[in-house]
Amino acid sequence: MLQNELKLRRDKIRALMAQRGIDAALITCNVNLIYTYGRVVSGYLYLPLQAPAQLFVKRPNNLAGEYVRPIRKPEQLPDLLKECGLALPARLMLEGDELSYNEYGRLAACFPEAEVLPCGTELIRRARSVKTEMEVELFRRSGAAHARAYAQIPSVYKPGMTDRQLSIEIERLMRLEGCLGIFRVFGRSMEIFMGSVLTGNNAAAPSPYDFALGGEGLDDSLPGGANGTLLQAGQSVMVDLGGNFYGYMCDMSRVYSIGHLPQKAYDAHQACLEAQAEVTALAKPGVTGEALYQKAVEVVEKAGFADYFMGIGQKAKFVGHGIGLEINESPVLAPRMKQELEPGMVFALEPKIVLPEIGPVGIENSWAVTSDGVEKLTQAPEEIVSLN
Amino acid sequence: MLQNELKLRRDKIRALMAQRGIDAALITCNVNLIYTYGRVVSGYLYLPLQAPAQLFVKRPNNLAGEYVRPIRKPEQLPDLLKECGLALPARLMLEGDELSYNEYGRLAACFPEAEVLPCGTELIRRARSVKTEMEVELFRRSGAAHARAYAQIPSVYKPGMTDRQLSIEIERLMRLEGCLGIFRVFGRSMEIFMGSVLTGNNAAAPSPYDFALGGEGLDDSLPGGANGTLLQAGQSVMVDLGGNFYGYMCDMSRVYSIGHLPQKAYDAHQACLEAQAEVTALAKPGVTGEALYQKAVEVVEKAGFADYFMGIGQKAKFVGHGIGLEINESPVLAPRMKQELEPGMVFALEPKIVLPEIGPVGIENSWAVTSDGVEKLTQAPEEIVSLN
Repeated sequence: MLQNELKLRRDKIRALMAQRGIDAALITCNVNLIYTYGRVVSGYLYLPLQAPAQLFVKRPNNLAGEYVRPIRKPEQLPDLLKECGLALPARLMLEGDELSYNEYGRLAACFPEAEVLPCGTELIRRARSVKTEMEVELFRRSGAAHARAYAQIPSVYKPGMTDRQLSIEIERLMRLEGCLGIFRVFGRSMEIFMGSVLTGNNAAAPSPYDFALGGEGLDDSLPGGANGTLLQAGQSVMVDLGGNFYGYMCDMSRVYSIGHLPQKAYDAHQACLEAQAEVTALAKPGVTGEALYQKAVEVVEKAGFADYFMGIGQKAKFVGHGIGLEINESPVLAPRMKQELEPGMVFALEPKIVLPEIGPVGIENSWAVTSDGVEKLTQAPEEIVSLN
Repeated sequence: MLQNELKLRRDKIRALMAQRGIDAALITCNVNLIYTYGRVVSGYLYLPLQAPAQLFVKRPNNLAGEYVRPIRKPEQLPDLLKECGLALPARLMLEGDELSYNEYGRLAACFPEAEVLPCGTELIRRARSVKTEMEVELFRRSGAAHARAYAQIPSVYKPGMTDRQLSIEIERLMRLEGCLGIFRVFGRSMEIFMGSVLTGNNAAAPSPYDFALGGEGLDDSLPGGANGTLLQAGQSVMVDLGGNFYGYMCDMSRVYSIGHLPQKAYDAHQACLEAQAEVTALAKPGVTGEALYQKAVEVVEKAGFADYFMGIGQKAKFVGHGIGLEINESPVLAPRMKQELEPGMVFALEPKIVLPEIGPVGIENSWAVTSDGVEKLTQAPEEIVSLN
């Protein structure tokens, strides 16, 4: 079963390689090894176009199998390939957006006769953007576990808490439901612990990261998310933690209130729910990320909240993003995104509004694209929940 | 004060640049920005040899200052440098072990007249390996917070817990003491959530990562650490979480027991304490990482535990490692490491032994190198603590 699944994934990559005349891929970055081999190893998966994939592994030292061989250093690769009866590649792709410049150079130098191309990341991410049925099922289970953790949030709130203290209790709930904790992001710039809990004006604090909302954070070495603000009556709290239960980054936000909020907070929240409803009614194979973004903007503008949509001083320039082994995959729901939805794509849709002196409202769910629409993966009540 | 500190750090990098005839560095990776600018931004710190550093920032959009300018994309850098009255570089260094191959190429292409060198990571990491007094002080505070969290471990243990459940409660204690949670590792291969809690035979399970001990983990997408083992009488539990309270990765391990352990566990633990005592008695400026490693091996061999030192089937090939903004810095205490200790270096020393059917014992503390010895940064009892 798992072997068939891995074959399916590898063949998706092979199909893209064939289009570009690439006859082999050398895969060594963790998320791509999870995708193509089913687990993290320290080593290399050599994926030829026309032969079975071969794993060369440094660690762990207890893996075995017909297509598994030990390796100490990449310079052994050509000899090991010959021992396996494999021809050396003519056009080899490496993970050019993930390997460091120096490591890329070292790996490329192992194949002096080959034309080496840095498009591995791009092609594998394209293959990863359309999930298999097994991957969608792992997302369904993640969404259910994520929802179970959030359902317990009111039980851990205590008056007088800060955003940081509430965040810690929610992190624990997530971990107890099975969250692995680790939050994988593509690219070197964006870092976050398990997610963010934002209240009051901290939701408008600009951060260096390209997440939907910012937050000052607790230290300049990680300037995003909770900043120690006391949770106060009349303010909202948005909980947006990553739900990595099986390697897949499920994404879900819900809003809580400390007591009752001013009416405009409920109006703005409703505008976000309407944006979600209209965007997901439109979403199906063939629709572009740009069209979905414009629909969300249209709904929020009509409701009169355009100035507060996706932040205030520094706004996020998207309303949704593909999710998978990393939190930021294809497709992106943003201006100028001409990529069309395909069945099997999974994305988070997060129309959010930040209201000065109140805080963030809105919604985020994870969705899988079906043959004729979308399926909600994170089933949970969507209204603002009062914590006391 | 902070400006003086940052000047000190930048001048350490400049001194290394001068030795190699490099006249500017372009710094854009998060840990190096924390080091040279004091915080994470999305942008570029341009560090000339002979002029003040200049920050070009994409996000956040609320930074200001004499040497701060907004930027949208790196291709603007040459024009922006000219606007600042800075000459274009002749020999420019980039972070070649941290930037991806594709991003490195994009940045290098912005400076077609310059000789671009990929040694930025190496030089900045060398500068970072010798901490300033302020950095050592942040480590002292981290060590104290780390020790406060571990002191509460007996209070969260409940009979019938698994390693995973105990880990979750300790993670919460660490977070409540101020741990930022995020665990920064140099390189793309090693991933971990907040650290590891290992008990029984799981401590001997080989993992893909080059941490001191392995563990099976809870999912193949993160195969290290706790695996859901029930904590059982007669077995040991090693707690080894990262202590990132101010950006600096403090490192500390302590051992607990469920009831009483077989005598050889206490003997092996004592051998590790002796190894720590002898290694730290030897440690001072001028001593090599190799000499310290050999001393640890010598003590453990004499005690009869060589076969179990640093793991069983798959052994770690070091007994200590530099720590700083990342968990794996210079120096490394391992065979063939000729690098000598210098005042200001900070390292973790972790002699550990894994006993079949019992689990891991040993110790880990963080140490700062002084002018004539070492200072312990993680002050806490070191004996095995029984949890019931």
